[in-house]
Amino acid sequence: MLQPDFDSTVIDARLAAAKEASYRLARATTAEKDAALERIASDLRARADEVIAANRLDLEAGRSSGLTTGLLDRLALDEGRIDALAAAVLEVISLTDPVGETLTGRTLPSGVRIDQIRVPLGVVGAIYEARPNVTIDIAVLALKSGNAVVLRGGSAAEQTNRVLVDVLRGAIDAVGLPAGAVQTVDDYGRAGARHLMQARDYVDVLIPRGSAGLIRAVVDEARVPVIETGAGVVHMFLDASAPEQWAVELVHNAKVQRPSVCNALETLLVHRDAVDRVLPAVLDRLEASGVTIHADERVRALRPEALPVTDEDFATEHMSLDLSVAVVDSIDDALAHIRTFSTRHTESIVTNDLANAERFLNEVDSAAVMVNASTRFTDGAEFGFGAEVGISTQKLHARGPMGLPELTSTKWIVRGAGHVRA
Amino acid sequence: MLQPDFDSTVIDARLAAAKEASYRLARATTAEKDAALERIASDLRARADEVIAANRLDLEAGRSSGLTTGLLDRLALDEGRIDALAAAVLEVISLTDPVGETLTGRTLPSGVRIDQIRVPLGVVGAIYEARPNVTIDIAVLALKSGNAVVLRGGSAAEQTNRVLVDVLRGAIDAVGLPAGAVQTVDDYGRAGARHLMQARDYVDVLIPRGSAGLIRAVVDEARVPVIETGAGVVHMFLDASAPEQWAVELVHNAKVQRPSVCNALETLLVHRDAVDRVLPAVLDRLEASGVTIHADERVRALRPEALPVTDEDFATEHMSLDLSVAVVDSIDDALAHIRTFSTRHTESIVTNDLANAERFLNEVDSAAVMVNASTRFTDGAEFGFGAEVGISTQKLHARGPMGLPELTSTKWIVRGAGHVRA
Repeated sequence: MLQPDFDSTVIDARLAAAKEASYRLARATTAEKDAALERIASDLRARADEVIAANRLDLEAGRSSGLTTGLLDRLALDEGRIDALAAAVLEVISLTDPVGETLTGRTLPSGVRIDQIRVPLGVVGAIYEARPNVTIDIAVLALKSGNAVVLRGGSAAEQTNRVLVDVLRGAIDAVGLPAGAVQTVDDYGRAGARHLMQARDYVDVLIPRGSAGLIRAVVDEARVPVIETGAGVVHMFLDASAPEQWAVELVHNAKVQRPSVCNALETLLVHRDAVDRVLPAVLDRLEASGVTIHADERVRALRPEALPVTDEDFATEHMSLDLSVAVVDSIDDALAHIRTFSTRHTESIVTNDLANAERFLNEVDSAAVMVNASTRFTDGAEFGFGAEVGISTQKLHARGPMGLPELTSTKWIVRGAGHVRA
Repeated sequence: MLQPDFDSTVIDARLAAAKEASYRLARATTAEKDAALERIASDLRARADEVIAANRLDLEAGRSSGLTTGLLDRLALDEGRIDALAAAVLEVISLTDPVGETLTGRTLPSGVRIDQIRVPLGVVGAIYEARPNVTIDIAVLALKSGNAVVLRGGSAAEQTNRVLVDVLRGAIDAVGLPAGAVQTVDDYGRAGARHLMQARDYVDVLIPRGSAGLIRAVVDEARVPVIETGAGVVHMFLDASAPEQWAVELVHNAKVQRPSVCNALETLLVHRDAVDRVLPAVLDRLEASGVTIHADERVRALRPEALPVTDEDFATEHMSLDLSVAVVDSIDDALAHIRTFSTRHTESIVTNDLANAERFLNEVDSAAVMVNASTRFTDGAEFGFGAEVGISTQKLHARGPMGLPELTSTKWIVRGAGHVRA
């Protein structure tokens, strides 16, 4: 679709409408918000044909513009996927509404009462790529936590997202909440995205979801506060004492179970004393699952056919069945390698040495640090959050898997009876 | 002092040293950190003459460059103030170390154990203006919470800060912690500040403290995440039912007790039905304390000699004995005015109407919202935090008075026994 000429007043009007709607949503009861979610789920199912027709246009455009099979698959919606999407919306109803929760409170010596309670952030901006399920996902999580949302979903899914946004707005309106709570800037392309990233007066937080390149671009351009999510150059370290069977199973699970996600393993570091004892079985198991090994010299002594590993490999989130493997002389060298190349998402040590386990837990500065567990556990659903907004790899506000509480801020409520400060 | 030519490699080396020191500090025990604080306090007292001599140079330069009396007063250090500063450092020892606190934890259905624990942020950048006490203040709070700190303290205090940084580094080194934990970019002026604001690879968060202009400049220029602090266009609303005596005392305390701080009152809104009954006594009390009233037409009907108020007044944090006063027709109009002009720091309603009190608490979107209490209560010490890093007026990470926990992030610790994801 041709993009209209960029008109910042139109976009500002949408952002202002989102802000206005956010005030109403902040006061919406859990029952009102859950009614909206229920309606979204039923409208999604009722309007599945319309969504699929729009999706077909996106898929056709994607095929002619040469999108990869992987991207086309992420883009595609059929009856079954829409049904699963609707079911996921209904699951959000069962999650605890974080708004209004009292986090702490006390009576001050003067008799003034203070309470810190959770309130919605306000307006959440979401920037993501060609995954129409994210449109529904992020909108319903924002809604449940009392936030308005401004979406920028990537041009490849534009037709699909247009219908999905219409479904969302219609459902919200039908239950008496403001349809303005869901806005899109998709029709203004990159200029719209750029405007969204600058809109400090209207948008309280930006959440980019997608490739490392997308996230980097948002961090570089945004003046609105950003929560960095996702990119995972994830490490596992096989310590000298790593039990062989655990090593084989943990490395295989972390790399192979779902290679295209951010908590999948990218680099395996092996203590030199574990190389002969453990590494052959680990590599056998990986190779049997079609993993391509990028190896340093010491690993290639065992596997001459492996590709040579480069610093660029060490810094890359492959999201494929590629794995970098290197031998280190000590846990210090492993920690130094991780410090240099990790994106601070998840790292795991496989060991039977308690001192090294504790040292790894203390010294690795990542959102999740593990002992003898698969890195695939870093996930909102696995952590029991019921839903996941993304996985934060930054240190402010939220770190690691983000659930509904991470879409809230707080407010101090202060009650006096004519109290003045002495 | 002449600034050296800007050399980003020198500054990067300092930032890298701060980062390196932050790894050691993250593992420092509370006892180690407290020993450093104790040493800082005693060294401050022992080197008071040196500090005062440097401060004299800054004061002379300030006088010849025409700094206001107020700024010169903030800049000045004497024996008494240095002693008070040392005493404040010792008080931080008694605060609970937030590092290592377990915030939540559970055993997942698979048997994997997860715990969310507090960890230091890493490297905290502080940008502030001509207040040498902030140099000590922010450095010791960062230190107690396990963070390294990079300071940019404003050229007017450069000589004083140079000695204070030397005291801090000397004391930290003397107890066996890395002196690199305290860095300054003061000697590189604005170019140094700019470099600090861009240094995402080294700095985890920037905290600007000072004027609205300083904070705006940092927000605009920074690529490092910023916690906005301080600017307070603070409102009080006298509802139709406001008890007269409370109104008189609360408005007076909020405006007059300490007009130069961010939680002081800037705008008084009065319900039209309270004007005749309450406002004269409120204004009498203010005027007796020398407050200059900037008033709208309806207030000037009572006080023709008052200055006419402008939208610019409504948007200004005067930090002086100036007060904007306006009459509103309803609580809705009061809420609308606050939404337009508030900096979302603190607002208070004076009322005897429970429904309006609850509405005000719910609908005002500020860090602290009060009923029948002076806005001066929004303060880390008053809230019982023992120390205050600043008052956040943003919604991410921290909102309202920030204590030591707000200088931390979290980390998920995951312990398994060969657990793989199904």
